[in-house]
Amino acid sequence: MATDTKAILEAVAHQKIDTTTAQALLASGTTDDLGFAKVDLARTKRNGYPEVIYGEGKTAQQIIDIMYSLQSHQQNVLCTRVSPEKFVAIHQVIKAAVYYAKARCVVLNVQVMATTSTSIAIVTAGTSDMAVAEEAAVTAEAFGNRVQRIYDVGVAGIHRLFAHLTEIRQAQVVIVIAGMEGALASVVGGLIDTPLIAVPTSIGYGTNFEGLTALLTMLNSCASGITVVNIDNGFGAAYSASMINHLSQGGKA
Amino acid sequence: MATDTKAILEAVAHQKIDTTTAQALLASGTTDDLGFAKVDLARTKRNGYPEVIYGEGKTAQQIIDIMYSLQSHQQNVLCTRVSPEKFVAIHQVIKAAVYYAKARCVVLNVQVMATTSTSIAIVTAGTSDMAVAEEAAVTAEAFGNRVQRIYDVGVAGIHRLFAHLTEIRQAQVVIVIAGMEGALASVVGGLIDTPLIAVPTSIGYGTNFEGLTALLTMLNSCASGITVVNIDNGFGAAYSASMINHLSQGGKA
Amino acid sequence: MATDTKAILEAVAHQKIDTTTAQALLASGTTDDLGFAKVDLARTKRNGYPEVIYGEGKTAQQIIDIMYSLQSHQQNVLCTRVSPEKFVAIHQVIKAAVYYAKARCVVLNVQVMATTSTSIAIVTAGTSDMAVAEEAAVTAEAFGNRVQRIYDVGVAGIHRLFAHLTEIRQAQVVIVIAGMEGALASVVGGLIDTPLIAVPTSIGYGTNFEGLTALLTMLNSCASGITVVNIDNGFGAAYSASMINHLSQGGKA
Amino acid sequence: MATDTKAILEAVAHQKIDTTTAQALLASGTTDDLGFAKVDLARTKRNGYPEVIYGEGKTAQQIIDIMYSLQSHQQNVLCTRVSPEKFVAIHQVIKAAVYYAKARCVVLNVQVMATTSTSIAIVTAGTSDMAVAEEAAVTAEAFGNRVQRIYDVGVAGIHRLFAHLTEIRQAQVVIVIAGMEGALASVVGGLIDTPLIAVPTSIGYGTNFEGLTALLTMLNSCASGITVVNIDNGFGAAYSASMINHLSQGGKA
Amino acid sequence: MATDTKAILEAVAHQKIDTTTAQALLASGTTDDLGFAKVDLARTKRNGYPEVIYGEGKTAQQIIDIMYSLQSHQQNVLCTRVSPEKFVAIHQVIKAAVYYAKARCVVLNVQVMATTSTSIAIVTAGTSDMAVAEEAAVTAEAFGNRVQRIYDVGVAGIHRLFAHLTEIRQAQVVIVIAGMEGALASVVGGLIDTPLIAVPTSIGYGTNFEGLTALLTMLNSCASGITVVNIDNGFGAAYSASMINHLSQGGKA
Amino acid sequence: MATDTKAILEAVAHQKIDTTTAQALLASGTTDDLGFAKVDLARTKRNGYPEVIYGEGKTAQQIIDIMYSLQSHQQNVLCTRVSPEKFVAIHQVIKAAVYYAKARCVVLNVQVMATTSTSIAIVTAGTSDMAVAEEAAVTAEAFGNRVQRIYDVGVAGIHRLFAHLTEIRQAQVVIVIAGMEGALASVVGGLIDTPLIAVPTSIGYGTNFEGLTALLTMLNSCASGITVVNIDNGFGAAYSASMINHLSQGGKA
Amino acid sequence: MATDTKAILEAVAHQKIDTTTAQALLASGTTDDLGFAKVDLARTKRNGYPEVIYGEGKTAQQIIDIMYSLQSHQQNVLCTRVSPEKFVAIHQVIKAAVYYAKARCVVLNVQVMATTSTSIAIVTAGTSDMAVAEEAAVTAEAFGNRVQRIYDVGVAGIHRLFAHLTEIRQAQVVIVIAGMEGALASVVGGLIDTPLIAVPTSIGYGTNFEGLTALLTMLNSCASGITVVNIDNGFGAAYSASMINHLSQGGKA
Amino acid sequence: MATDTKAILEAVAHQKIDTTTAQALLASGTTDDLGFAKVDLARTKRNGYPEVIYGEGKTAQQIIDIMYSLQSHQQNVLCTRVSPEKFVAIHQVIKAAVYYAKARCVVLNVQVMATTSTSIAIVTAGTSDMAVAEEAAVTAEAFGNRVQRIYDVGVAGIHRLFAHLTEIRQAQVVIVIAGMEGALASVVGGLIDTPLIAVPTSIGYGTNFEGLTALLTMLNSCASGITVVNIDNGFGAAYSASMINHLSQGGKA
Repeated sequence: MATDTKAILEAVAHQKIDTTTAQALLASGTTDDLGFAKVDLARTKRNGYPEVIYGEGKTAQQIIDIMYSLQSHQQNVLCTRVSPEKFVAIHQVIKAAVYYAKARCVVLNVQVMATTSTSIAIVTAGTSDMAVAEEAAVTAEAFGNRVQRIYDVGVAGIHRLFAHLTEIRQAQVVIVIAGMEGALASVVGGLIDTPLIAVPTSIGYGTNFEGLTALLTMLNSCASGITVVNIDNGFGAAYSASMINHLSQGGKA
Repeated sequence: MATDTKAILEAVAHQKIDTTTAQALLASGTTDDLGFAKVDLARTKRNGYPEVIYGEGKTAQQIIDIMYSLQSHQQNVLCTRVSPEKFVAIHQVIKAAVYYAKARCVVLNVQVMATTSTSIAIVTAGTSDMAVAEEAAVTAEAFGNRVQRIYDVGVAGIHRLFAHLTEIRQAQVVIVIAGMEGALASVVGGLIDTPLIAVPTSIGYGTNFEGLTALLTMLNSCASGITVVNIDNGFGAAYSASMINHLSQGGKA
Repeated sequence: MATDTKAILEAVAHQKIDTTTAQALLASGTTDDLGFAKVDLARTKRNGYPEVIYGEGKTAQQIIDIMYSLQSHQQNVLCTRVSPEKFVAIHQVIKAAVYYAKARCVVLNVQVMATTSTSIAIVTAGTSDMAVAEEAAVTAEAFGNRVQRIYDVGVAGIHRLFAHLTEIRQAQVVIVIAGMEGALASVVGGLIDTPLIAVPTSIGYGTNFEGLTALLTMLNSCASGITVVNIDNGFGAAYSASMINHLSQGGKA
Repeated sequence: MATDTKAILEAVAHQKIDTTTAQALLASGTTDDLGFAKVDLARTKRNGYPEVIYGEGKTAQQIIDIMYSLQSHQQNVLCTRVSPEKFVAIHQVIKAAVYYAKARCVVLNVQVMATTSTSIAIVTAGTSDMAVAEEAAVTAEAFGNRVQRIYDVGVAGIHRLFAHLTEIRQAQVVIVIAGMEGALASVVGGLIDTPLIAVPTSIGYGTNFEGLTALLTMLNSCASGITVVNIDNGFGAAYSASMINHLSQGGKA
Repeated sequence: MATDTKAILEAVAHQKIDTTTAQALLASGTTDDLGFAKVDLARTKRNGYPEVIYGEGKTAQQIIDIMYSLQSHQQNVLCTRVSPEKFVAIHQVIKAAVYYAKARCVVLNVQVMATTSTSIAIVTAGTSDMAVAEEAAVTAEAFGNRVQRIYDVGVAGIHRLFAHLTEIRQAQVVIVIAGMEGALASVVGGLIDTPLIAVPTSIGYGTNFEGLTALLTMLNSCASGITVVNIDNGFGAAYSASMINHLSQGGKA
Repeated sequence: MATDTKAILEAVAHQKIDTTTAQALLASGTTDDLGFAKVDLARTKRNGYPEVIYGEGKTAQQIIDIMYSLQSHQQNVLCTRVSPEKFVAIHQVIKAAVYYAKARCVVLNVQVMATTSTSIAIVTAGTSDMAVAEEAAVTAEAFGNRVQRIYDVGVAGIHRLFAHLTEIRQAQVVIVIAGMEGALASVVGGLIDTPLIAVPTSIGYGTNFEGLTALLTMLNSCASGITVVNIDNGFGAAYSASMINHLSQGGKA
Repeated sequence: MATDTKAILEAVAHQKIDTTTAQALLASGTTDDLGFAKVDLARTKRNGYPEVIYGEGKTAQQIIDIMYSLQSHQQNVLCTRVSPEKFVAIHQVIKAAVYYAKARCVVLNVQVMATTSTSIAIVTAGTSDMAVAEEAAVTAEAFGNRVQRIYDVGVAGIHRLFAHLTEIRQAQVVIVIAGMEGALASVVGGLIDTPLIAVPTSIGYGTNFEGLTALLTMLNSCASGITVVNIDNGFGAAYSASMINHLSQGGKA
Repeated sequence: MATDTKAILEAVAHQKIDTTTAQALLASGTTDDLGFAKVDLARTKRNGYPEVIYGEGKTAQQIIDIMYSLQSHQQNVLCTRVSPEKFVAIHQVIKAAVYYAKARCVVLNVQVMATTSTSIAIVTAGTSDMAVAEEAAVTAEAFGNRVQRIYDVGVAGIHRLFAHLTEIRQAQVVIVIAGMEGALASVVGGLIDTPLIAVPTSIGYGTNFEGLTALLTMLNSCASGITVVNIDNGFGAAYSASMINHLSQGGKA
């Protein structure tokens, strides 16, 4: 943004644009105003990735409109939390859109992304955590990361985890996804030397409180190197993991 | 109690006592009324163990009075949650009382209890859980159990636990004591074939909520065979563990 | 596990297997990897009972696959939280599967288990707690325990409890199941000399908070010898109770 | 109040007072404005009892001023939640004030109240509930009720309760005071045919949450005829109980 | 119960019954065991009113069975929380059953009850609180009380309350029913000299938390003489109010 | 109200009405009693705006009846939280009623209101907050305010907000509506010099707790000049904003 | 800020400053960097009032440094939450600083502010709410508002409120401060036609939860026109009230 | 660990050690058992960093013992949450220990660590967040990272943040530390393209709930790329940030 500001200011200084234009540019810059939404077209520049559409609470038509907006600005599209029914409606209009059913994600790629040589490991405690894990995996892959899936290795049968430990330790960053009591994050965190992002899931019953217990477990882990995202937020974990994995591919000056 | 009732009823039937006496006996039986407290002298008969004094919120004098009452009825005395200051006051009056400082317990034995051949293992996650662990250990020993103490083997360095696994698996019943995220209970629970009683401790900070997080973790464990007691309730865990350990020594007809 | 490790290590020492194989064996041992799940076949050895399938959140097909896996390894199968609809689908494929409708459990026995001479008493406060109670009862019976069912004896009419007290006191371990305020656990706990496992149920309304009130009541009981499991967790209570009841049948060396 | 309004209106109608005076009378009536407080002198008329001073958060001087205000209007004074230190300061100024140390209440009677022939029973679960019980007892006695104190009869030793059941059943209204899990209210409620007011106390630890657990237990009681007041609110329970007890002495036309 | 016990004991003393029979009588006395439920037939004697059926969570057939049991022992029947659909099924079998749709209650009277000369006032804050109010009103009437209904007089338009104040002040006991912030209880409590039972309702949204806010308001009321029941518990409020109203009709010796 | 009282009192003083009439007038004054509801016709006088109907939990018929009552007293009608289905039923009877679908509001104007020259700005963080925003906007317009809608300018793309800052700063009062973490309120609050009313919405998932997180954020804002209303309470925010906006149009003497 | 930006941009366009300077000006503008704090000197321009110092958690020396910074830029200083001890230290250095003990506020005026002709009414429920009320009053006065203090008129004696209603209704905006159940806000809100800002206080005990109950009450008020600030936040309420009161004195173009 | 296992297995295969030794080695490996603690000496190998001592709840002597243990194994020592008093005691014994007072950390370096060329930015909202920020900064520096401190740039004066944006954007990873409503994390997250670790602090009052509000805000951020640690956990944030920063310096094969 600093760069943006400077470029516009210099344009003003050299009288290429007047101050009213400059003020507008400084503020509204790269937004596509759809009325119901102001699509943020500068996000790749600002955040390193295009704006991702959160599908829940939006109609199929609203999603289609935002997809068109992003696509027309040469941006890859990822849309999360899309029900199968909603995808059918989207697909009738945007044939190129691809649906990942387990992850409930829609992908529409305008440009091919290179895949990292290093990988993100996605580790789940149980079979029921798979939907969240797939949202993370599809997101990470959409952002150009190599992904290792290691599912159903919860601590009730801890030897299942040890069988995959070498694999997990080779990743640059590890996402641990668990519901119920969420203890897997602490155990994995104690065994690796890379950043671990923990995702609590809403799997469980009674005092699980729809994922709150797993969240608290992860925030209070006795192992170091663990950070946490919101309940069921596979997307958010993958977003951060992708940033970290890409850093390790070259870093910033 | 069933037996009691029958005995009294038969005494009535054989006119050894009148019905008014019987009614009183049925109701008030074996209580020592101290005014501020009604000491329950029938607890050994009814529950298998004498009444244990919960020291918190009682004055030294009140504790002394209840200790005298129990002692005079030939009952061993265990008093938990006694501060060092309070013990000094008790000890000036009851010289035979013994103080276990780490456990903050007072013991006054009237009769020697046999020690079980089998043992209770008490396992803690960290150094800070030791006070609760010692309350459990002293209670279990006061009730005649052999106790194995295995402290500071939390999951952040899980190899410390594996180093003691054989020992833990030899116990009849295992008490796992942990604060912070309390994940140790799930890991141990997944590795043993005996009952596990989990005790959350109030060790931690922030969203630990003074033990609530560890409690929730333990209640939602993905491992089976785990039951839970209140936060910091080392005494309660030991009480149940002792019942279980004694069952395994002979059981009930 | 200690034993396992030693056997594998000795095989290495005598050059019967190479170290790569040993490492794999040590880690992955006895797991059947179904892709969506890693079935834990070593659980009987490690925990004393086979892995139990938690039916909620699994498709009928997933349950069928895990049942086949366990059955093919000569393990008895218990699957909890199965809806009638899901059972119909399972039954079409696995004819030998038996459904316990009130308990919502499926049982598929490969080998006959001996029944204990001693019993577990299952006591409920109200009629509405019956579903949880039956989950506990079917689980306990599947694990070879004799079970006494004593239902609807809540404290609003406490004479109903006293009428069954003799029966309750003859059990080796008592499971008390109650919703609303859950006071029954404290009352029974004050009258028996055996371990009591309390199960809060989600029966109630308003400030019952779907079982939270009963859970808190049970954790804070003024009676000793009570441990607690998660809300509605009839299975978990029976699992621990079965461990305790079997201990009393012989104990461990 | 209806009566008040009419009287004032009639005074206006008969030109005894002008409308400005009437409006002021209608509104401000019987209040003594001390600046920091507006003492409500009409409370006896409106509520049946004088205003009671809640001592916590008031200085000794503020309490003295309000006591003087009430006394000078011929009203009996009850002040709750007064520390011993604060009472010393009050007593230096108002010699006639009497302190009830266990109840932490100050009483200053201007006129003698008749004592009811019927009684209020105050029942506690444990020794530690006594402070709340005494606040209730002193309040009830200050309002002219006969009081029966039955302390330390909690459900861990339920025979202690049965020994006093006849006594409890003779009261017009029963106050049950309990901390920890608060189960005593349900048990007593199931055994009596009179109104029961339950007072949760902040006695307990861990998940007791300073009385919240006992409060929830009492609100969710399976026994009928139980109403509840705030945690540790012995005064409030006694206030309502006194209203009920006096109703039974004659009722309202 | 005291009386019961004495009668049975005397029967034993005079050898009219043996001790085994006595023991059974003492305990199980007046219970009708339907298998799924143990109907408490002694409740009138013990609590002053027959057992009331809580309809939620029971099948129509279970309700019918319990109604038959009570009816055959000459007890009036009140069943709360009955949906219209369930009543249709009940009515096909028990033609004499009467349904109060707004209150969702079924009444089946075996014997006519006298109506009190004094009344219970039922006051609501809003139109939406009417269902709870009618449950209270039908319950109170079923127990023989005269009832005054004063609905929709919440504090947003406080003059609506003042218009009914005289009426409210004539009642022996007042039930105040309010959702949202529940302030009506405090305002009414400050204006009357009779016991007030407050019922929070689950009417509201957002931070109302399904009635929790109104409950907390009522428990913390600055007005004295208020006791509280569980959220939406119109039945419970009427039960206690009826006890109080009947006390005022004659009291107990 | 003061005025009312005085007028009635003077009528009494001049014997135009008797005291019984006066008392009734004083109390019930301007209420239309529909049985299920007491319509408050004095609200415009007392509060400056007519009573607004909260549609949720009321039947179409009840809404129609209240609308008729208000209309017949020459009051404009606003009814919030009306589903499309309910409106169909209302519209069949009251043809002049207008439905605002996004806002779920019904408006029926009897008299035309002047529109303020100054405006209220309504700012939302995301597309999903639009329903709450429209409830606010329609309410504000119904009360005669000019409204500026600025939607989807959340802090994830903060330049979208700056693009509209001049517009926002021109309003007399700003309503900020946000779900998820609700940070927009703090950012806007730090940039303006007019009152800001923050509305948390229930948009979000996991630890959003249906708007609770946004509410807490807004209550704890580090920016000054922010006040908060209940979750999703667009109506309430507009009601207060309208009061403020009208004050700025002339104020009160 | 929009104006700022334009001015700077025009300076660039006319080559009065270079782009590097412009960029720095745009960003850091009017901040005084004290190392531990960046004093916001533009706040009057941006928000209409100078930055107010929140004294809690700051040392006397830090407060002194910030006061000097503000004073040297000709800004009036208000510092809230200052203990008497801390003020002594401040006063030794800044003699002109004035302490308002009840409000725990320090004021240091550089320029005299005009006082509004219209007023803010500050209404409290009880004597104990006075500290919060005084924080509000001193803040409002520091910002140049006329203030009416009306204390101790809670709903337990509602006639005390009515006695001051005329006074309250004359204010432009009303602040209602209440602890315990906080019902006063609803009652006042139903009687006035001006904006009401409600401040919950932490006065109470038990389920008051240090002000949470009063907060919830106020957020769920059935009366319209009420907005709410954080618990005990007298300052925040006065800040918003002052904005509103000043609007009514002239408004914005 | 995988490597460890293989090495030990090969030693067994070549008969360099027997199987019993191997089993012990596999399990207990590199732990120093101090009785009260089992110091984990393998943590650098396993996690990339030595074990860090959490000072709270440990005595000075316990800390000294663990420091000696680590030091004697050539490991750098970092000890967090050490009060000044405790440090005095430590320093008397270990002269080389250095205390960072604002951070409350003790450092004892055995070997010099290289400092990264890239940096971690630590950004705080307010002055009061500095203690947590310094714990993070000292930890990050102890682990060899270059650190940029940017304090007191909260959103109430958002231009203070923009003044430092270029600096923040140059970091590899950003730690944002904020109390109150924690909105700063979302604003920064929307402006950068690197991983952001958010630390809620317990700074605030009322509904801040000792940091819970800031935590919830951060977990629900509308900006992507944010992960969260426990309240006040500056150490944990720095630990993860250091892992990420080091990854960017070279990554893993």
